[in-house]
Amino acid sequence: MEPLRSYVGGRWQLPTDEGSALYDASTGREVARLSTAGIDRAAALDHGRRVGGPALRELTFHQRAALLKSLASHLREHREELYELSARAGATRADSKFDVDGGIGVLFTYSSRARRELPNTTVYPEGPAEPLGKQGTFLGQHLASPLHGVAVQINAFNFPVWGPLEKLAPAFVAGVPTLIKPAEQTAYLTHRLVELVVDSGLLPEGSVQLLCGNAGDLLEHLTEQDLLSFTGSAATARRLRAHDTVVRNAVRFNAEADSLNCSVLGPDATPDSAEFDLFVRQLVTEMTVKAGQKCTAVRRAFVPHNRIDEVTEAVRARLAEVRVGNPSDSRVTMGPLADLEQREEVRRSLKGLLEAGRLVHGDPWQPVDLVDADYQQGAFVPPMLLRCDDPELAQPHEIEAFGPVSTVMPYRDVEHAAELARRGGGSLVGSVVSADREFTGRLVLEAASHHGRMLVLNDTDSAESTGHGSPLPQLVHGGPGRAGGGEEMAGIRGVLHYMQRTAVQADPDTLTALTGQWVPGSGREVTEVHPFRKHLEELRVGDTVVGGPRTVTDEDVRHFAEFTGDTFYAHTDEEAARANPFFEGVVAHGYLVVALAAGLFVSPEPGPVLANYGLENLRFLTPVYPGDEITVTLTAKRVTPRHNADHGEVRWDADVTNQHGESVAKYDVLTLVAKRDSAEQRS
Amino acid sequence: MEPLRSYVGGRWQLPTDEGSALYDASTGREVARLSTAGIDRAAALDHGRRVGGPALRELTFHQRAALLKSLASHLREHREELYELSARAGATRADSKFDVDGGIGVLFTYSSRARRELPNTTVYPEGPAEPLGKQGTFLGQHLASPLHGVAVQINAFNFPVWGPLEKLAPAFVAGVPTLIKPAEQTAYLTHRLVELVVDSGLLPEGSVQLLCGNAGDLLEHLTEQDLLSFTGSAATARRLRAHDTVVRNAVRFNAEADSLNCSVLGPDATPDSAEFDLFVRQLVTEMTVKAGQKCTAVRRAFVPHNRIDEVTEAVRARLAEVRVGNPSDSRVTMGPLADLEQREEVRRSLKGLLEAGRLVHGDPWQPVDLVDADYQQGAFVPPMLLRCDDPELAQPHEIEAFGPVSTVMPYRDVEHAAELARRGGGSLVGSVVSADREFTGRLVLEAASHHGRMLVLNDTDSAESTGHGSPLPQLVHGGPGRAGGGEEMAGIRGVLHYMQRTAVQADPDTLTALTGQWVPGSGREVTEVHPFRKHLEELRVGDTVVGGPRTVTDEDVRHFAEFTGDTFYAHTDEEAARANPFFEGVVAHGYLVVALAAGLFVSPEPGPVLANYGLENLRFLTPVYPGDEITVTLTAKRVTPRHNADHGEVRWDADVTNQHGESVAKYDVLTLVAKRDSAEQRS
Repeated sequence: MEPLRSYVGGRWQLPTDEGSALYDASTGREVARLSTAGIDRAAALDHGRRVGGPALRELTFHQRAALLKSLASHLREHREELYELSARAGATRADSKFDVDGGIGVLFTYSSRARRELPNTTVYPEGPAEPLGKQGTFLGQHLASPLHGVAVQINAFNFPVWGPLEKLAPAFVAGVPTLIKPAEQTAYLTHRLVELVVDSGLLPEGSVQLLCGNAGDLLEHLTEQDLLSFTGSAATARRLRAHDTVVRNAVRFNAEADSLNCSVLGPDATPDSAEFDLFVRQLVTEMTVKAGQKCTAVRRAFVPHNRIDEVTEAVRARLAEVRVGNPSDSRVTMGPLADLEQREEVRRSLKGLLEAGRLVHGDPWQPVDLVDADYQQGAFVPPMLLRCDDPELAQPHEIEAFGPVSTVMPYRDVEHAAELARRGGGSLVGSVVSADREFTGRLVLEAASHHGRMLVLNDTDSAESTGHGSPLPQLVHGGPGRAGGGEEMAGIRGVLHYMQRTAVQADPDTLTALTGQWVPGSGREVTEVHPFRKHLEELRVGDTVVGGPRTVTDEDVRHFAEFTGDTFYAHTDEEAARANPFFEGVVAHGYLVVALAAGLFVSPEPGPVLANYGLENLRFLTPVYPGDEITVTLTAKRVTPRHNADHGEVRWDADVTNQHGESVAKYDVLTLVAKRDSAEQRS
Repeated sequence: MEPLRSYVGGRWQLPTDEGSALYDASTGREVARLSTAGIDRAAALDHGRRVGGPALRELTFHQRAALLKSLASHLREHREELYELSARAGATRADSKFDVDGGIGVLFTYSSRARRELPNTTVYPEGPAEPLGKQGTFLGQHLASPLHGVAVQINAFNFPVWGPLEKLAPAFVAGVPTLIKPAEQTAYLTHRLVELVVDSGLLPEGSVQLLCGNAGDLLEHLTEQDLLSFTGSAATARRLRAHDTVVRNAVRFNAEADSLNCSVLGPDATPDSAEFDLFVRQLVTEMTVKAGQKCTAVRRAFVPHNRIDEVTEAVRARLAEVRVGNPSDSRVTMGPLADLEQREEVRRSLKGLLEAGRLVHGDPWQPVDLVDADYQQGAFVPPMLLRCDDPELAQPHEIEAFGPVSTVMPYRDVEHAAELARRGGGSLVGSVVSADREFTGRLVLEAASHHGRMLVLNDTDSAESTGHGSPLPQLVHGGPGRAGGGEEMAGIRGVLHYMQRTAVQADPDTLTALTGQWVPGSGREVTEVHPFRKHLEELRVGDTVVGGPRTVTDEDVRHFAEFTGDTFYAHTDEEAARANPFFEGVVAHGYLVVALAAGLFVSPEPGPVLANYGLENLRFLTPVYPGDEITVTLTAKRVTPRHNADHGEVRWDADVTNQHGESVAKYDVLTLVAKRDSAEQRS
């Protein structure tokens, strides 16, 4: 069998030796061969930096997002093939969907969030411009721009599809090329994934590369512009973090390590309650999905001390129904471990755990009853439940058996439960199963410092809950300490991990030119043509219309109060208004001011501006009194063409001033504006 | 002389030996003695965790902010004393203000930003709640909560006041206690600072501790809940980053190292231009402030190749006016280096630089003419300017002489300038002095990936510019690679560095209970008393008023158009409106809908609600057609009492629906609401 090729430097490269064999988790038959002999890792990084990076940086966030979406659709068409290959790694059909559909889902989510939350530009102005002087000639603006290096992923064996994709998605949106280094055991799956990516021809060359085999001297070539993301064991995370080059160049390093995640059953959950049942079912799910080979699996189950017998018995009963065997057989609910080495590792860890607790279900040293599989050939183990009556012992909080293994322990009260949760020394996730809001609130607040994610599960949210073990692209994945100290995903936050945040200090016009976003204090151009009469392509940031002045009369205010029913005393009762600490007498309604302002800036005839879909950051700054004259200045602030649409969004800066030149209201007006060629596009 | 005491474990502790001497930078006389013999570092960390942390976590963000403000005022009263002590370290009065006033300024800024941007609670819900299911029973909410450890600062000698304070401020706001480890050379200044802090009695015990001397085994006791922030040399940053315990426990580590910052003169700047002059003056300032001992100082000056003679000459001329000597003497514009060791270090580095360039001003091996000082006693050097005509050589981009030393180099064009800027391998700051927006834009975009901050300086912003060398609390301070790879300050972002971000997944009511902030989908209570009649203390999140229905008539729309002047065709012309892709006919103005909604929810008589000061996140979701009936549901979402004020802010969730139950508009209404006892407070 030919070893797997690596995709580096723009082509599929065969290693120069025959490599070592990888085996089917169930049958022990050779699945693939692996080697990176002769692959030039430094050249791969260089290719990413010289070819992939510049190509990505040419694209806007929305263009990158559109490519991700196409890629996601392409992969979805081929997922059946990935499911089948997953069985070789021991994954049941359900396990495989978790991995494959989960990974494709991350691409879809990042694609849509990027288009919704990022501008259609190549750099991201993060947060508002900050005035740094009183005259407004000097401002600060944080700008996120893509790092000029390569995002190197060192992945774990347990999620050969989701793992690479959940890291690729934010890096790609950020504009940073990726080099994927899969774990050896399941490299053939990631290999097929990257083949699908490359064959699709959708992504710019150099934006995704694959190094199938060991990392070799890869890390020695990392610069301060590269990133290193690792998912896997805490021990390897430590080694990478302390790597000479990583330290010397302050390479941005992110680790996500398996941790001693816990699940806590609330004191309110009697055996006949929905929560009791949810807790038991979730624990069994977490133990058996991917045969417990999940960084997020529940390792420590804390239950009220007076319920430990009942819980243990209920979990045992459910575990007895688990059918272990050939993952391709639809009757099977738990497949084998990834390989025999993993089984040895689980047995070793279990010995440590047995110093503190005892097995109440499953024995990894005894053959298991299997469905359609041979115990001698595969890495099979039964689900194993331990019970430890002394939760103060160290082992259950420190030793992780990376397989279908959990330990049930008793706690006394909420403080004790939170303290035990924290004893994991940092976890990816903790869950609390309870309908008692007092209890869940206390527990979450007291244990949050040690968790990247916490799930509150109860009868109210269980139908929609995505579960303890599932990281979601919109939420943080990662945790402090033992869990690696990293952070992944969490929506656009995850994109920023791949970018440099730079505080740019400049005059307003320079900032506007730099960001393509109009900054207060920059020049405004009162255009000959009303800006509402310009199509999206014709509009320039800074295009301005000034409307007014219009006097706001006593009669206007009285009438508006009557017409709208907003007869708040400050608008209707001179004496009462004067007693208000903020007003000197009757004031105009804020809503009246913005409505009149719209009347002053609008261009009424049909034209490119299609609708006002919202308003942002409206602040009433100075009261408007009857007799005041208002003027409105409306300036195009940000123009966001929509990809694949015949319109885009235009955000306008509105500044309503009075006859003294004071701002009385400031806000952003959000409109939809047609593209010039929208008629053709629609046809 | 007795050695400096450390403030740990709640008391000032004298070391058990006599320590080593620190000397006045100008006179060489002993200033203080330093030792940490006998100081139990593990106990100090433990005290912070057990006493300081819990005390801080009891306080809300606003309470912590108020304490910071009091502390800032207290320190300001004692700054004269700190100025005087600074002279011992070689600081002129101006240098000293940079350090002392700068540090106090950070406290004030963090105090005001925390009150403006953070809720008045103990945890911070970051970002909006994310719906995770279609039914709305399962949501995600990121929550930032303080880490349960100690923020250990290892500071640089050059900013003994600003350094500790710029790190203390965000940690304190976050709710994390601090342990300060000053650099040895200037520890007596930080010691006095902490004495002032402790004597003020303003901060909770355990929230600030001081370890005067070497770190010893301090780092070995760090856990995953502690943080380590370092400012100083790149070499030490590497050592700390790779420290066994830091790596093992994934201790959150932040480094800010001196870097090879550059300043670029634009091609537009002729010798008679304002920008030419600004460049030269800035370079001389950066070389001489703190005798060039600033992490942000300009080390590399890039000028158009045809201007290098003129620039060099102009800088030389200005440097010739620098008066070196006793920093207490008001005629002196540059003091000595911190100590003789620093001078040796500068001389050593200069030798390296001289392999690539030549000195055109200053010679550190020759005695300098001094004002009121003896060359034999102090660490005096002249300002030193090098010229290197081959900017492709390595030395000027790699060797930092931490003193009044810069190298002038030529560049060809904007790409070349950007490439040279990037060769610093990561810098804290770069500046570009030019009025050419094309040039500055290109340069910033192409070099931003390598910089934490970039300053564009020109005639427009120079009067208000805070300068190349000044980090500001509202902006990022830090930079990639050589600059340490860290980030400090940047407003509230800096506070989040000291907190754990946890994604909490739960049902809406649980999230509301947990965060104190009403989450969409949670229970609403239509209260018997209109919520506008409740004072701040009586209001509960979830308190709701429902108003309506009211039919929006054809006449209403017609009249509103006429009254406000907003005769946009979609509100006035049936046929044209129907041709709009979003509407089926004439629609009501969005402003009309929100104005009518206000009429439906308002409680007109004088009461606790004082004013509507703004609106946020208004979105028009469904068109309102004449004949539609609208209903508004207004729910108290967040209640923020103001410290030291007789009112607070209440944010309301407004949901306007039509007769089909569809939301037509959603937004947040912002109001000021009086406290019950406001009358007494005001008196």
